This record gives sequence, structure tokens and C-alpha cells, in this order.
Amino acid sequence: MSYTAEIISVGTELLLGNVANTDARDISQELSELGINVYFHTVVGDNPDRLTSAVNIAKNRADIIITTGGLGPTCDDLTKQTLAGCIGRKLAFHELEAEAIRDYFARHLHSTEITDNVFQQALLPENCTVLRNMCGTAPGCAFEQDGVHVIMLPGPPRECLSMFRNCAVPYLRQFANAEIRSHNIHIFGMGESAVEDKLRQMMLELENPTLAPYAKDGECRLRVTAKAETAEKAEELMLPVLDKVKAVLGDVIYSVDIDTLEETVLGLLRERGKTLASAESCTGGLLAKRITDISGASAVFLGGAVTYCNSVKTKLTDVPEKLIDEKTAVCAEVAACMARGIRTKLGADYGVGITGIAGPLSDDSGAEVGLVYAAVSNAEGEFVRTLHLGSDRTRIRTAAANHALDMIRRGLTGLDLKAEAIVV
Amino acid sequence: MSYTAEIISVGTELLLGNVANTDARDISQELSELGINVYFHTVVGDNPDRLTSAVNIAKNRADIIITTGGLGPTCDDLTKQTLAGCIGRKLAFHELEAEAIRDYFARHLHSTEITDNVFQQALLPENCTVLRNMCGTAPGCAFEQDGVHVIMLPGPPRECLSMFRNCAVPYLRQFANAEIRSHNIHIFGMGESAVEDKLRQMMLELENPTLAPYAKDGECRLRVTAKAETAEKAEELMLPVLDKVKAVLGDVIYSVDIDTLEETVLGLLRERGKTLASAESCTGGLLAKRITDISGASAVFLGGAVTYCNSVKTKLTDVPEKLIDEKTAVCAEVAACMARGIRTKLGADYGVGITGIAGPLSDDSGAEVGLVYAAVSNAEGEFVRTLHLGSDRTRIRTAAANHALDMIRRGLTGLDLKAEAIVV
Repeated sequence: MSYTAEIISVGTELLLGNVANTDARDISQELSELGINVYFHTVVGDNPDRLTSAVNIAKNRADIIITTGGLGPTCDDLTKQTLAGCIGRKLAFHELEAEAIRDYFARHLHSTEITDNVFQQALLPENCTVLRNMCGTAPGCAFEQDGVHVIMLPGPPRECLSMFRNCAVPYLRQFANAEIRSHNIHIFGMGESAVEDKLRQMMLELENPTLAPYAKDGECRLRVTAKAETAEKAEELMLPVLDKVKAVLGDVIYSVDIDTLEETVLGLLRERGKTLASAESCTGGLLAKRITDISGASAVFLGGAVTYCNSVKTKLTDVPEKLIDEKTAVCAEVAACMARGIRTKLGADYGVGITGIAGPLSDDSGAEVGLVYAAVSNAEGEFVRTLHLGSDRTRIRTAAANHALDMIRRGLTGLDLKAEAIVV
Repeated sequence: MSYTAEIISVGTELLLGNVANTDARDISQELSELGINVYFHTVVGDNPDRLTSAVNIAKNRADIIITTGGLGPTCDDLTKQTLAGCIGRKLAFHELEAEAIRDYFARHLHSTEITDNVFQQALLPENCTVLRNMCGTAPGCAFEQDGVHVIMLPGPPRECLSMFRNCAVPYLRQFANAEIRSHNIHIFGMGESAVEDKLRQMMLELENPTLAPYAKDGECRLRVTAKAETAEKAEELMLPVLDKVKAVLGDVIYSVDIDTLEETVLGLLRERGKTLASAESCTGGLLAKRITDISGASAVFLGGAVTYCNSVKTKLTDVPEKLIDEKTAVCAEVAACMARGIRTKLGADYGVGITGIAGPLSDDSGAEVGLVYAAVSNAEGEFVRTLHLGSDRTRIRTAAANHALDMIRRGLTGLDLKAEAIVV
């Protein structure tokens, strides 16, 4: 038998849009690893009637109800009382938990003055498994009533996830009848519909593992997911699918399970002992920022220049003033000079140069918004991609950086750069 | 009459915990501004039966059903077909939308080869209001059937929010029975509990407008919200509250309704006709990236250097090698030299220098992770803040850039920089 869980998140702040429901995301991720299905998330406010109706609906479609939020000391924290009412379980004062709360105040808040409402948190369902809160005062609980398992967790994300991992997962292991594993295939240079077009038959036919495309951060990805008795068997089931997808899509796949192009490129630079320097105009530091988001980047990334105005292109990356005067700052030659200039100046193996119009307005030259030249310079010379990236500033900048990273990836792995060699 | 909306987000990736449901958050925020109540969010997978059951439940408890996701070209995009089935409205091929899709491909993707599945997106409910997608190909729609209003939006957050704001909000105005207006007060340099402490009495007493603190992107903000018959009346109600908050909090308020420190700083630079250049070590381009996220930055931001490794600090910002040898790269003097070096080299009015340990590991010097020096250089000299920013890499980098921006803001408005003058 396969178990189904539903997550009910309680909190008016979620319905007002003040915060995103990251608790449901984090718990779902963990449940998926346990092989427990999640078919619904429900968000409801701090309102007993609506929470009751949500619980009554969930009782009929899930084996396990997991609530987040509403366990705290204030008067709008109503989850326990409400659940107790509609699941049919009394609340009782847990002296041990009151002691733990006192202890928490003394150790973490260095205080022994505790307002009475704090002890409301020690009121928990009778005969439940108490889930201890290591990051706060509100304990959670788990119990079974009339065939429905209920787990209540606090709302603050850190408390919720820590309690889930440390206390709820051991409790839930009794329901984990299968291992679910998945791999994410990351693609650059082919859109979702083209990918689907090439793989449609396979996607339709596969049942276990499944193969599904999804778009994230402007990229197309494929998720392969298998369910089996053991993790090893799940992996075994996925292998032929991964191989087939690789054979069909080829070198537009930049990684399996490495989340970003920049991580992939950093890994390759490290493996091959190469260094990188960047010169960015329209991306304005975005590429360097993305690379240095990753800890350990300093081993291979030397630094770079943000050559936002034209004189800085000359000052920091030795682009000849004359070239800019003659051809404007947005041309393949300037991109190539920027890449070579920063590579030479910083003594790197790879140099990147990006120049273009991120919009929303064009520059004096009247060049098209979205026109970007991305260049890579290495020992073999300078190579430039001419790009037309639409009209959205954020998207243009992200895509320009992606293309530059893709060229470096291709350069480092001996693939066709898909760029024009430029002599300057 | 007050209208109630329910948001149904469709996507297995949400139930697997791959992404958080930011669409529901963003839409809820906008609905709250319109005075439309949201009592439930539901998340359901790409499964027609379960989506049908979710819609049937929502029909009975909401006047407006807003779906996100499942409008794309792939075979698991089933929202339109399923909703059409359970709401009782046929789908029809919209030739105009097919044309718009062709046009989008030609303009943004420079492609006229379009796979057939793409045109599935032009299949929309009969006689619906089409909501045009400015950031992608999948159009949305809005229609009324048997007293229930349905709005379907695409899932990718950028497309969803843009369509909601530009197309769905005008459609929804018919249900907005009061004008709700709000202002956001942005604070840097005072935490949420300190802010709350100073304003507690006021927050408790106020009913219309309300005053509520919230944390976002590591910053504390205050939202003032008023409800009235007209927008003008709502604004009038808020004025004395805004004045009072400004009087209590003083110069830690960096803006009202300008969302970020970088936008605030760019505005000030523009107003005062001053230019800026940056030199970043541990932030690795993040500051430049944030500044150039804003269109029009080129008028005041000249460019900068990402001086990630020590030799680059010397090469691009003229930090004396000897200084680094003697005092390491993470010290107030190096930050000051970087700020002055880049200012002088690029001929800017303001220079920024940031050096520190973003972690998770320290450098060879063994300096504490989270130790950062942020410097500003202007005609009056060099000024440095010494910062201890905790242990989280992303947080350290964001906070370091924030402090640098706050110093420039203070410099430009004649406030105390809250920094030490450094002579190098």
C-alpha cells in the first residue's frame, strides 16, 4: 500500500501574500524521498471554521494530515484546538513539555519570567507522540485517530523543517513502503517544446520511471523519477532512461543534478585546473555575481571588470577607443577585445566579454534592444556569439550570462563553441 | 458585498517540493490590495481527476477561482481542458492568439519553425476574455460561468505576475468594493524587534489605517494600509501615520515605496548629478549587478572591478601589494584603497570598496567568517564600516552590499555615514 499525505498550512500571513509557503515545499521534498505521495497542499487562515472544513476534506483524501503553523502562544494560534475538535481527540496539559519550555527560556532567552500564554503550548492531544522543538518553544505532535495520522508542526520555517527532519521523519518511516529517487537533467540551448517534441513518445510510454519536462529560471529541465523497494533498484530503473535522453538530446545537456550552468562551469574549471576572468557591460556584474555565489569560486575565478560606460571598457580591458568610435560599443569586435583584454590583464586561461543592449531603451547608436555579443577568449583565440534576446531586461541579462557560461563549458569540454571566430 | 477568491496552483513540481508556490503569494498580495478576500490556496498536481475535485470544492466556497500553471504546450499541461470540463465551458481555437504566438516566436526567438504542440496554447474557452502573455507564449483567460468567475494564469512566476498585474487586475476591479491603498516604509539599520518596540503602542491602537511590520530580504519594512471609499481618502488617512513613523524612526528610513536601497541610491545620484564606481571582493559583483538591474543605471554608474583574488586588487584598483602582505586583504585599509582606487581610476564622484570573508571557510589569514569592511570614498576622504555579518554566505554578501549602499545614501544626503574615517 502506498500512503498519501496532505499538507495543511495555517496562517493568515500566507493568504495575505506576506510570505510564500516554503514549509509545504520543504516537507514535500522530504515526503517525496520517503515515497509518500502528496496530492494536495491547502493553505487556510487562522480561522477555526475554515480550518475545520479543510481538515474534513483532507480526512477523506489522505492517510496522513500534516499541519504547519498555529501552534504558538498567541490567541490566533488555533491549530491544536481545532484539529482536536474535528479529529475527535482531547487535549491535555503535558507537564514534561511545560518543563521543556521553561528550560528553553532559561537556556536560550536567559529568562525565567514567562507569560502564562506561553504554557498554552504545552496543551497537546492526549496520548500523542510529542515532537520536541529544538529551535523554538512550540512542541509539535503526532497521533493516529480512526485510521488518520495527524502530524502538527510549527510554522516558522526553521522550526518546521528541523522538527520535520528530526522528529516527524522517524515517525513516518513506518509508512515509507518504497524509495523514490529522481534525477534532474539540465538543458541549455533547446526550448521546452523542442525537447518535448523529441521525447514525446518516450514521455508518454514511461510509467516507472517517469520522465517530465519543467521550466525553471528560464531553462528547460527534465525530471526522471523512479519508485522501487530500494534506492539501488530505483537508480537501476533510471539508468537506461538517462542514457536514452542523453543520446537523443546530445550536448545541449549541460549537467545531470548540477543545478546551474555556473556550478557546472566552476566544476569543469577546477577539474581542468583553468582560471577565468570576466568583463561585463550589459550584464553589469551578474556573471561574476553568479560565479561567486558558489563557495570555493576563488580557486578558479580571478576577478573581472564591470565596464558599464565606454571609457571603462578602454581603461579596464584595453578596448581601443578607436574601435568603439568606429563600430560602437555593441559589436562582436568589442566583445572579443573585452574578453581578450581581461584575460591578458588578469593572466587567466579563459576570458569572457559581454556587451549588448539590456534595454528597455537602446543606446545612442540605436541598436536593437536584446542584441548582445558574448565572447570567450582562450589560447585558441576569440569566439563570439551574436544573440537576440528579446525585450525584457532581466531576461536579456540572464540569458547573456547563460550563453557566456555555455561557451566556456563547451570550450572546456572540447565541444563546438557554437560561436564565430573573430580576429581583432 | 465582499468577494472571495481561491487560488488553485497546478503543478506536480509544487507537490514534489521542487519550488515554493510564489505565484499564490504574489497574487494574494495583489488581491489583498483590491480588497478581495482569499480564504484558501490549493495546490494540486498535473492530474485531471484531482484538479477536477479541487475545482468542485472551490466552486462552493469562492466567487472567483484563479488558477496558475498548466497552460503550456506540453502534454501534462491540462488546466484548460480540465477546467472547461468541470466548469462547463467548451474550448475553441483562437486564431488571433495563434497569430500572437507566431509573432512572439518571430520577434523574441527569431524563429518561424514552431512545433505543433505550441499551438495547443491557442485553445481557450469560448467567449472568454483573453489575457495576453507579454513574457511568454501561453495566453491566459478570464470568464464567468454560472456565477463563478474563472481566471487562468500561466505558472512561470514572471509570466504569472505580469499577466495578473496587467490583465487580471483590470478585470477584477469590478469586484473591488473599496479602495485599499498602502505604503511601504523601508528601513535599514534597525531590526524588526527594535522597530516593533518603538511603535508597539501605535500598531496596537491603529485600525484604519493599519501599521504592520514585516521582514523581507533581510530587511525590516512597515506597511501602512488604509481602506476608504476613494483612493484619495485612503491616502489622507495614511498621511499622519507616515509622518509619525518618520518622526519616531528618523534616518534609518531609507525610502517610502522605493523597493530597494540600490534604487534609492541611484535616484539620489541622479538627482545630485554624481557618479559611482565599485570595487568588490567578497561580494564578487553583487553590488554592481544590483545597481545595473535597474534600467537607466548607466547615467550614474560608470562601472567597477571584481577584485576577487589579491593580485587583481592591485592590478585593477591599485591597492599596494605591500599593504596586502602586511595587513592581509581583509582589513579597513584595503577596503579604503579599493574604494579610492576605483574612484580615481574611473573618475567617479563616489567609489565603493568591499572586502571580507563570505565563507563558509575562512582565508589563509584565518579571519572570522562574516567579517567585512565596506568603504566609501568621496571628495572628503575614505570611510569604512567594520561589519560582523554572521555565517551564511548569501546573507553576508547581501548585507555587505546593503551597508555599502547605505553609506552612499548617507553621504549623498548629508547624514552621518556611521563609519570610521580611514587615512591610507
